[in-house]
Amino acid sequence: MDMMEQRFNPPGTAPGTLAGRAVEGEETLHFTLVEYDEKKCDVFFEVPIDECRFHLSTPEKTWIDVSGRPSAEMLKTLGEAFNLHPLALEDVFHANQRSKLEVFDRQVFVVLNDPAWNGGELKVRQVSIFFGHNYVISFHDHTDDIFALVRERMQQVGARLRTHEVDYLVYALIDLVVDRKFPLLQRFSDSVEVLEDEALEQPTRQTLRQIHDLRRSLYNFHRIQWAEREAVHAMMRTDVPLIAGETRTYLRDCLDHSIAVLDLVETYREMCNSLMDVYMMSTSNRLNEVMKVLAIITTIFMPLGFISGLYGMNFSAEAGPLNMPELHWAYGYPAVIGGMVVIVAAMVYWFKRRGWF
Amino acid sequence: MDMMEQRFNPPGTAPGTLAGRAVEGEETLHFTLVEYDEKKCDVFFEVPIDECRFHLSTPEKTWIDVSGRPSAEMLKTLGEAFNLHPLALEDVFHANQRSKLEVFDRQVFVVLNDPAWNGGELKVRQVSIFFGHNYVISFHDHTDDIFALVRERMQQVGARLRTHEVDYLVYALIDLVVDRKFPLLQRFSDSVEVLEDEALEQPTRQTLRQIHDLRRSLYNFHRIQWAEREAVHAMMRTDVPLIAGETRTYLRDCLDHSIAVLDLVETYREMCNSLMDVYMMSTSNRLNEVMKVLAIITTIFMPLGFISGLYGMNFSAEAGPLNMPELHWAYGYPAVIGGMVVIVAAMVYWFKRRGWF
Amino acid sequence: MDMMEQRFNPPGTAPGTLAGRAVEGEETLHFTLVEYDEKKCDVFFEVPIDECRFHLSTPEKTWIDVSGRPSAEMLKTLGEAFNLHPLALEDVFHANQRSKLEVFDRQVFVVLNDPAWNGGELKVRQVSIFFGHNYVISFHDHTDDIFALVRERMQQVGARLRTHEVDYLVYALIDLVVDRKFPLLQRFSDSVEVLEDEALEQPTRQTLRQIHDLRRSLYNFHRIQWAEREAVHAMMRTDVPLIAGETRTYLRDCLDHSIAVLDLVETYREMCNSLMDVYMMSTSNRLNEVMKVLAIITTIFMPLGFISGLYGMNFSAEAGPLNMPELHWAYGYPAVIGGMVVIVAAMVYWFKRRGWF
Amino acid sequence: MDMMEQRFNPPGTAPGTLAGRAVEGEETLHFTLVEYDEKKCDVFFEVPIDECRFHLSTPEKTWIDVSGRPSAEMLKTLGEAFNLHPLALEDVFHANQRSKLEVFDRQVFVVLNDPAWNGGELKVRQVSIFFGHNYVISFHDHTDDIFALVRERMQQVGARLRTHEVDYLVYALIDLVVDRKFPLLQRFSDSVEVLEDEALEQPTRQTLRQIHDLRRSLYNFHRIQWAEREAVHAMMRTDVPLIAGETRTYLRDCLDHSIAVLDLVETYREMCNSLMDVYMMSTSNRLNEVMKVLAIITTIFMPLGFISGLYGMNFSAEAGPLNMPELHWAYGYPAVIGGMVVIVAAMVYWFKRRGWF
Amino acid sequence: MDMMEQRFNPPGTAPGTLAGRAVEGEETLHFTLVEYDEKKCDVFFEVPIDECRFHLSTPEKTWIDVSGRPSAEMLKTLGEAFNLHPLALEDVFHANQRSKLEVFDRQVFVVLNDPAWNGGELKVRQVSIFFGHNYVISFHDHTDDIFALVRERMQQVGARLRTHEVDYLVYALIDLVVDRKFPLLQRFSDSVEVLEDEALEQPTRQTLRQIHDLRRSLYNFHRIQWAEREAVHAMMRTDVPLIAGETRTYLRDCLDHSIAVLDLVETYREMCNSLMDVYMMSTSNRLNEVMKVLAIITTIFMPLGFISGLYGMNFSAEAGPLNMPELHWAYGYPAVIGGMVVIVAAMVYWFKRRGWF
Repeated sequence: MDMMEQRFNPPGTAPGTLAGRAVEGEETLHFTLVEYDEKKCDVFFEVPIDECRFHLSTPEKTWIDVSGRPSAEMLKTLGEAFNLHPLALEDVFHANQRSKLEVFDRQVFVVLNDPAWNGGELKVRQVSIFFGHNYVISFHDHTDDIFALVRERMQQVGARLRTHEVDYLVYALIDLVVDRKFPLLQRFSDSVEVLEDEALEQPTRQTLRQIHDLRRSLYNFHRIQWAEREAVHAMMRTDVPLIAGETRTYLRDCLDHSIAVLDLVETYREMCNSLMDVYMMSTSNRLNEVMKVLAIITTIFMPLGFISGLYGMNFSAEAGPLNMPELHWAYGYPAVIGGMVVIVAAMVYWFKRRGWF
Repeated sequence: MDMMEQRFNPPGTAPGTLAGRAVEGEETLHFTLVEYDEKKCDVFFEVPIDECRFHLSTPEKTWIDVSGRPSAEMLKTLGEAFNLHPLALEDVFHANQRSKLEVFDRQVFVVLNDPAWNGGELKVRQVSIFFGHNYVISFHDHTDDIFALVRERMQQVGARLRTHEVDYLVYALIDLVVDRKFPLLQRFSDSVEVLEDEALEQPTRQTLRQIHDLRRSLYNFHRIQWAEREAVHAMMRTDVPLIAGETRTYLRDCLDHSIAVLDLVETYREMCNSLMDVYMMSTSNRLNEVMKVLAIITTIFMPLGFISGLYGMNFSAEAGPLNMPELHWAYGYPAVIGGMVVIVAAMVYWFKRRGWF
Repeated sequence: MDMMEQRFNPPGTAPGTLAGRAVEGEETLHFTLVEYDEKKCDVFFEVPIDECRFHLSTPEKTWIDVSGRPSAEMLKTLGEAFNLHPLALEDVFHANQRSKLEVFDRQVFVVLNDPAWNGGELKVRQVSIFFGHNYVISFHDHTDDIFALVRERMQQVGARLRTHEVDYLVYALIDLVVDRKFPLLQRFSDSVEVLEDEALEQPTRQTLRQIHDLRRSLYNFHRIQWAEREAVHAMMRTDVPLIAGETRTYLRDCLDHSIAVLDLVETYREMCNSLMDVYMMSTSNRLNEVMKVLAIITTIFMPLGFISGLYGMNFSAEAGPLNMPELHWAYGYPAVIGGMVVIVAAMVYWFKRRGWF
Repeated sequence: MDMMEQRFNPPGTAPGTLAGRAVEGEETLHFTLVEYDEKKCDVFFEVPIDECRFHLSTPEKTWIDVSGRPSAEMLKTLGEAFNLHPLALEDVFHANQRSKLEVFDRQVFVVLNDPAWNGGELKVRQVSIFFGHNYVISFHDHTDDIFALVRERMQQVGARLRTHEVDYLVYALIDLVVDRKFPLLQRFSDSVEVLEDEALEQPTRQTLRQIHDLRRSLYNFHRIQWAEREAVHAMMRTDVPLIAGETRTYLRDCLDHSIAVLDLVETYREMCNSLMDVYMMSTSNRLNEVMKVLAIITTIFMPLGFISGLYGMNFSAEAGPLNMPELHWAYGYPAVIGGMVVIVAAMVYWFKRRGWF
Repeated sequence: MDMMEQRFNPPGTAPGTLAGRAVEGEETLHFTLVEYDEKKCDVFFEVPIDECRFHLSTPEKTWIDVSGRPSAEMLKTLGEAFNLHPLALEDVFHANQRSKLEVFDRQVFVVLNDPAWNGGELKVRQVSIFFGHNYVISFHDHTDDIFALVRERMQQVGARLRTHEVDYLVYALIDLVVDRKFPLLQRFSDSVEVLEDEALEQPTRQTLRQIHDLRRSLYNFHRIQWAEREAVHAMMRTDVPLIAGETRTYLRDCLDHSIAVLDLVETYREMCNSLMDVYMMSTSNRLNEVMKVLAIITTIFMPLGFISGLYGMNFSAEAGPLNMPELHWAYGYPAVIGGMVVIVAAMVYWFKRRGWF
């Protein structure tokens, strides 16, 4: 279960403490810096922190994208270099926060989730965005270059991303993270469809586990998406600084998408519950079939067995004429066989009428 | 599953980009243009775009109905010709939006859903309506001429549709789309009724699949209808421009219908859940019946079989007088048969008393 | 299923159109007119429409009660005669509206539901009330004289119904319709009780159908009642014209009753769900009992049968001394019988200990 | 089912009519009157109505507690004597009202519920309190002297109950009624615990009925408690007359308790649902055990039976050397017995590996 | 069940009465006092009450932490010494209150819950915090020194805890109590994971009990957490005195954590429900497997048994040539054996095709 990896400060530590996270592999960071205004747009890869700090102080708009999981020390350095709030840093450090919006003095801090599909399970991943008057700093705790497309659009001359203020860039990043849920939903849609067929046609224990895992992923997805919707909605509040009215129109579109995703997640969740029912009924139907076979075989052969057992008895014909005279009839055996055939035919007719065949 | 067909922009593309939709068959559009005022009402079919543009600029009120799925280029042309907002165009392009209302500067944009019943599944279809001071442009992504009836009413002299402003026409279109859900509900009602009888009388695997499909359709219907209700409700907000007070009274009626549909969808959904229970109980009852037959047969024939087996044993009467003397009684065989009849009678009595017959 | 009888306008017809209803039997109307003021109260039965119109124009307060389902033409005539809004007429015509309150210019229109218990199913019936300055016109789509009691109270000298304005009469009618749900609830209460016993003691397929039908009725009742509560609540809004402050106190009592009914409907609904569980468990318990009988019989007789079969084998004693010497012991048969008794006793003891008896 | 005893006015009767209640046993009332101010506190038992009326007119504060179910005439007399609103009297008469607060002109009317545990079922009982400037009149429809403790506290010199206005006395009565739910919850808690063990260890049909009854009681309790919370909350509204600010602090504590009870009722309700699941699983587990026994016995003895049956066949050894030569081997019988032992051992091993033992 | 231990005042006792609690073991209290300002920070352990009172009156800020369950007398003394509101004292005494915030005249009272994991069950424990201008008094009803970490942080020179007002200390305590839920959630996460595997692979009755217990704990946790969130949210209301604006930013972080915990509890609850389903399906699958074995064995051996029984019949060959001539064929026995092999092979093939193996 991804969602509760030890990712919280030990209770009682001071706020803003960066500790209590399990270390996972190497913790290196990749800085990608874009300095742009209407006239130019320069992209630098693997920029050292000091240089980042320098660019932040230039009048051009600066976007620094940090990928990978920062270690505690690194984050502290970053916090000082970029002037980030300690509580926000704590949220970046423990990368499993609920999506949210925090407004600090002259800086806005947005946390979003960018879950990934990882072998049938939802892997929670966090995107954190800080922005101020003329800078945007984005963090994401994995090394996929998810923002490459935005960078490309930026490099086109006359792109809205360049002519507008940084709020439009922030919108573009949020929009991208929100829209990344659609291909993910496609995954769920496919899984549900496959499991539907399995549950109806060939319900195995494996199917059961997969339905359960899917449900769990959907519960988590729902939790994440609900918070995302709230965060995007909060972005549209008129008291959030630095967001222009026109950008709000775009964010409204973003919110619509976020709500659409939430709607679909809820629909899938209900479908998944229905799937569990279908699985159960299917299992139950199979049991019925097995039992029918058992009942049919038993019902047919028990009387036959009884009859043959009957004529296997050893009552002495000599003791009296009533002791199994059938055994000494010339047509005794054919008569018994004939009787058995009649019994079987009657049974089969009766089963047919009850719809057991 | 209809609801997640690849119908979203690839994440990261610029807002208003028209891409990422799977192409389905031929993409031709049909333009039907109505130019009307109190005195006249002219209908033109298959009008070329340039002519449409011309009519839009005349002082008469103009209604252009576009049917079919527009290709990206076509839509771009339309957007420029009719002066439509790029974000709205994107919504028209990816025809699976939630119902909604957008108010742009001098234009209102309404998205509604017109789902269709397609072989037991709900097929999502979109109706998009733009309107401004003296024009209405409607899009629907299928070629059924759903608005024919409104056109007919328009052609009657003195029709309210002609004497009122375009807001009344918009109301008439919305009203039609909303009311089209009633015949659809009738379909659900019929399906539920059929499945109820099947589930109670003859529950098969096919029944199970149909209940599950119905449920899925109802989840989707609910999602669609919820959004529709919100959109129609939003139309009644006093800050929506171009809507006269009197039209608002009519929209209120429309909203009532939308709520009534939502209520019914919820009721059907609950009924469908109940249906699943009924299916399960029915299956369970059938298992009980099968098991009863099995138990009755077994209970009757096992003791009989045992008795006949007993007297099939080969203990030597010569070895001692206690070795199966019954076999040598004159009435041994009739006595055994008699004993068996008594046993069967006792069993039958016992089963009757327990209510197994 | 009563709730979706073809009772809606064909989509696309003009608002206020009276069409699209299935005709049910004869459509005659019965007009009962009461003209009253503080001093007098005259009741006329089967009054022709023209006379009704005349009475409406007199200064005395007039209450016209129309019972039966009006045909489209009749309703059109009535609408003109009594000056009723076309949208309201449409609601009267399609008698399956949600309860609601509409305020037109100088007229208030209230729709309520008066469901009836009809052979185990809830039959939806509508009561529509128009009222203005000094008149009340009530419609109900069945011919039961449900308002007889109010008329009787009116005829008593000094009755509050006569001394107050028409709003008090409207309250009295609404109160009656609201309170008519209590005897109906009694029916549900009785049904639930009967089904509880059946489900626990003797669950049959019939029981299952009845529980399902009850559930369906309760879903519908809930839908109806929810709307009724909203409508009664809307009556208390201070912006509804013609309602005096004192009457609002009485309506508050009415609202309390409506909420109480809703509460009870919800409680019954939950009980009905619990009933379904009880049914399932009961069925499951019965299966267990059947299986226990089967298992007991099998467990006892299989070993016995095996033993008797064993000594029915034909190994030749002559071939060697180890071939079934038991058959030639003097006490072989009694020993086997004894062994069998011991086995049965051991089994019985074991079953007793496991609590199978 | 207690909750729907015929306890409502016949629909159509005038508001304030006292009729339609089933008469239960003798209907006598017991009046307990307390006249008090800071200096004195006199308690009178079984006071006649006229005397009550006299005390109400004295300047001292007066609390009249009426216990038992009043008949219609008695209540009419009381209404006139104490100047109570007819609608409120109707609520007192039909003692199954939802908890509520009504503010009349110079009088406040509070209805609360005081359910009792009655042989495993929740018995609804009503407490009604009227209060005005210097009087409190309380009704409860049973003869338990539930307010004895408040009277005792009143008799202590300097008790807050005496030094404060009547609103504090009203608070004390409400507080008592609210807190009486805690011992009741204890009953539910005990029941749930007992049923948990039963459902897990020894699920019988009786257990099932008890779980169902408990659920029903909890649904009713929830309904009652929800209304109580609303009523207590309404008491704290600043527009309720006669309630001092300090008393509101105490009422807030009361509200906290009422919410805590509601929380617990909801928790028990969910537990009860879980209990139903546990019951089902337990039943299902038992079935599994029965079936395992059946399968083990069958699986072991069927092959053995077959083998012994095989060697009970009568093929004539004389007809040919291939006809059952085993029967004439010297060690045929021991070999067969040995083979059978091997088969049983193999089976047991196989069952063990599958975890059936 | 922990949650309903007799922990409420007997109904009818005066508010603020300290009675009605079951005594549990020894009731001694431990007082830990911290006196601090920017310059110094002195910690005293096991301080007598009188000394506490003295420190409260000094100008330095004072934090008194009281651990253990106070007896009624002790609490009364404390109440007088520290000037605490009687209603608040009652809440401290009955240590199972819902989390809440009470604002008294110059004192704020916060109740929180600090549940502990106790052998698979959630044990409810209460933390109560009073604070005023320059003092904080905290109670917790167990003897774990949960606040040790805060004390340590306080002793560091220049710690924010020392430079800020007491509201920051209160924040630190609340933050700690809120964050203590994360390790607890870890416990639930682990339990769910273990039970998931058990339910899927090896569902026993023990598993069932554990799932049920987990559910119960989660219901209680949910109840507790919901109230906690409300209480923390209430702390941020601007009308709460003594809380500085900056502290509100920190409390917002606290609220975020509380909401995150609630979200996770809800997710676990849903997972636990899913787990119950998985358990059921698993049990059902196992039953199916048992039944398949039973059916296979029966289906194979019943016909074989019948055949061998058939040739065990004793029809006299002498009576006629049709009486079982097979018995006298030279290859009769091999033919029968061969026939049996063919039957078994056919059965196995049929089972394979149906997917029973």
